[in-house]
Amino acid sequence: MKRLLISIMFMSCFGGYAQNSTDSVVIRRIYDEALVNGTAYQNLYELCTGIGHRLSGSPQAAKAVEWGMEAMRKAGADTVYLQEVQVPVWIRGSKGQAEIEGSKKLKLHVSALGGSVGTGGKLSAGVVEVAGIEALKAMPREQIEGKIVFFNKPMDPRRINTFEAYGACVDQRYAGAGEAAAKGAVGVMVRSMSLTIDEHPHTGSMGYPETGARIPAMALSTQSAELLHRQLIGNPSLKVWMESDCEFKGYATSYNVIGEIRGNDTVMVVGGHLDSWDVGQGAHDDGSGCVQSIEVIRIFKSVGIKPRHTLRVILFMNEENGNMGGKTYAASELNKKEPHHFAMESDRGGFSPRGFHIDGEPAEISAIQAFRPLLEPYGLHTFEKGYSGVDIGPLKHGEKAPFSNILMLGLLPDSQRYFDFHHAETDVIENVHPRELHLGAAAMAAMIFLLDQK
Amino acid sequence: MKRLLISIMFMSCFGGYAQNSTDSVVIRRIYDEALVNGTAYQNLYELCTGIGHRLSGSPQAAKAVEWGMEAMRKAGADTVYLQEVQVPVWIRGSKGQAEIEGSKKLKLHVSALGGSVGTGGKLSAGVVEVAGIEALKAMPREQIEGKIVFFNKPMDPRRINTFEAYGACVDQRYAGAGEAAAKGAVGVMVRSMSLTIDEHPHTGSMGYPETGARIPAMALSTQSAELLHRQLIGNPSLKVWMESDCEFKGYATSYNVIGEIRGNDTVMVVGGHLDSWDVGQGAHDDGSGCVQSIEVIRIFKSVGIKPRHTLRVILFMNEENGNMGGKTYAASELNKKEPHHFAMESDRGGFSPRGFHIDGEPAEISAIQAFRPLLEPYGLHTFEKGYSGVDIGPLKHGEKAPFSNILMLGLLPDSQRYFDFHHAETDVIENVHPRELHLGAAAMAAMIFLLDQK
Repeated sequence: MKRLLISIMFMSCFGGYAQNSTDSVVIRRIYDEALVNGTAYQNLYELCTGIGHRLSGSPQAAKAVEWGMEAMRKAGADTVYLQEVQVPVWIRGSKGQAEIEGSKKLKLHVSALGGSVGTGGKLSAGVVEVAGIEALKAMPREQIEGKIVFFNKPMDPRRINTFEAYGACVDQRYAGAGEAAAKGAVGVMVRSMSLTIDEHPHTGSMGYPETGARIPAMALSTQSAELLHRQLIGNPSLKVWMESDCEFKGYATSYNVIGEIRGNDTVMVVGGHLDSWDVGQGAHDDGSGCVQSIEVIRIFKSVGIKPRHTLRVILFMNEENGNMGGKTYAASELNKKEPHHFAMESDRGGFSPRGFHIDGEPAEISAIQAFRPLLEPYGLHTFEKGYSGVDIGPLKHGEKAPFSNILMLGLLPDSQRYFDFHHAETDVIENVHPRELHLGAAAMAAMIFLLDQK
Repeated sequence: MKRLLISIMFMSCFGGYAQNSTDSVVIRRIYDEALVNGTAYQNLYELCTGIGHRLSGSPQAAKAVEWGMEAMRKAGADTVYLQEVQVPVWIRGSKGQAEIEGSKKLKLHVSALGGSVGTGGKLSAGVVEVAGIEALKAMPREQIEGKIVFFNKPMDPRRINTFEAYGACVDQRYAGAGEAAAKGAVGVMVRSMSLTIDEHPHTGSMGYPETGARIPAMALSTQSAELLHRQLIGNPSLKVWMESDCEFKGYATSYNVIGEIRGNDTVMVVGGHLDSWDVGQGAHDDGSGCVQSIEVIRIFKSVGIKPRHTLRVILFMNEENGNMGGKTYAASELNKKEPHHFAMESDRGGFSPRGFHIDGEPAEISAIQAFRPLLEPYGLHTFEKGYSGVDIGPLKHGEKAPFSNILMLGLLPDSQRYFDFHHAETDVIENVHPRELHLGAAAMAAMIFLLDQK
């Protein structure tokens, strides 16, 4: 008893130090658990090879919901439940095709952009190459009318963070078709958002303006984009044909999958998105974020961390083409008004973690930066203001967001390899490294453990 | 003229700031050059696919010397020359084999350790499994005599830096045979130094004590080590046979390849090692360090940096099994007494760079840490006391080292994937990422640029 009393006195005298020392012990246990007994990679293997890709509204997405509930239960969640989400259903149909016409019949590697209308048979036209949306806007209508517009603005290799390079040219994929149609174009081909020159087209979402013609849009592999670019130099009046039979099929019911470790009534959200594009296996995007979030539950249970606040892991549905999962969760919180401590997302791939982006007030960012000495030994160095994630975005942003000032965090893995795989056939389990994935899960668990005590 | 005068006044008033601002501009140019026009990956591709692995004394090592000279010239070196090095010649002979005897005849994936004697036909014996050298030392001779000792201490997955895990158990590979022979063992099998469970054995150097029996030693793939471990649980008296015909063939003449950009008489050394083990392509170990070092010359020339000190790039020969290249260079400097500003090595793979290890005085380490604001934007965060590299080691360490206090640096790439490939068939160009490799070269060039001004 005497020893206990002395311990208590010591702890109250040196509360700050003792707390910090305890924190470092718990964080070490979190990492040991993730690196020795981690199940995130095995879970991802099951999801990727047992189900594969899982576009919203597809049978695979429905299977992934079942899988997610079971994985949460196995991880030790106190409660597992579903939240209904209405999702758009877009189907690719047969694989798209395209070719440079003429005697050589040069094949182009293409993938219809998600949300695009089909071509209705072969669509043949001349081609106008433009270096992005701004370049298109500067051109007179007569140069565009009746043509297929070829958006060929590459990602800038000089950006160290490849997400910045992506952000600087993805507008041509998302809004290129609408802008081209406004000038009378009949179709759009967009250079894939990738820093690697290869034959894999990278799909991704696009949208049409409310009014105006809806013209078909396809991604070209970077290799095909280079080929088309070179051919156009030799023959500016060449023609290509493109063919796709994708279509929008209305809406269907799907689900966010939610698992909790119950604490008090204030909620800590952590999640990724369960849906993926309909190519590859959605391994990095965002199977990784899902299995890492589930792993946080397992680590907390194994290490014996009982969170003060309720830990709510959400596998969001439909991030890729509508974000209806994120919007639905935010809308439901607008009614429930549950207090939220913070929200965290992992949706930048399962690579070696380097830190976190923090979307918060300066004081919150400083408080997180004060964790630095505890986290740097684990290779986490970046704790800076930045973007958190699409799924948790609606909690804060927009007119109907339930919280104007909720703290949000995004895991920051090393970004160099991400766009090799993003939205392409190559986003498969073989390109995910078990230790890198598990280090990310441990980083998330450690940060949540620290924030839970605030 | 007036404008020039004002500029000069401004620069002298705010010298510190202006210098820092200029530094940041130059570092940005270094990175742009590496990321847009980088040739390191192309060079590595040529070395790996045109020549392949290149163990000291092999015909491939001789070809690599020719390749290295040409690559230095192409990069723009003012001077390219060779330094003669006497290297040991060890040859593997036919690929080794091993099997668990009995009705099942379970094949073991093995690779003779570099420097090992051959078995002289099939060597068959019972097996004693030990968890490392200390465990062996604690065992009585009668348990070991006549047996094959199976060293099965795994790398510790809890270490964040995988090189620490390697360092904590590589003694069983290097010295296991000698220790086992001292207790009467007839052969040694060593679990591969890898954190991945797969079928690839990882070779590496081993040595024998001056006196005592020389018994053959092999690496077992981690998968085979797990298999043998499980079989021993069921049948502790099982026997294995092993067969290899490797042998030591004396010494041969080879070379360090040296290229320079001439500055003053003080030298800045940067290098990697040109030799590799005789499996895979030596892509990460250490083709990467070689092409990154050569790339420093090309970047300096392209960006227009004229170094104050002489930049000396050295592709060292024979790091893997003797370090005769490093020792020879150090010995020659003992005679020449050229002043050296620092030495830098890249020999931890071509992965995303995270910073540098610094082997220097506290004041030198602090001075380098003061570069942090210039380098953190490029993802470089770690600048701490640590080990630099084997090749440059003899410049500082040992009785006959020419410099007792030379500053030494080692590039620190992310370490998670390195031991998947190290010394194995999988160390091939396909497992090197161009951008990660080029970022490492840029980090080295930036650090050399900053140190050159000190």
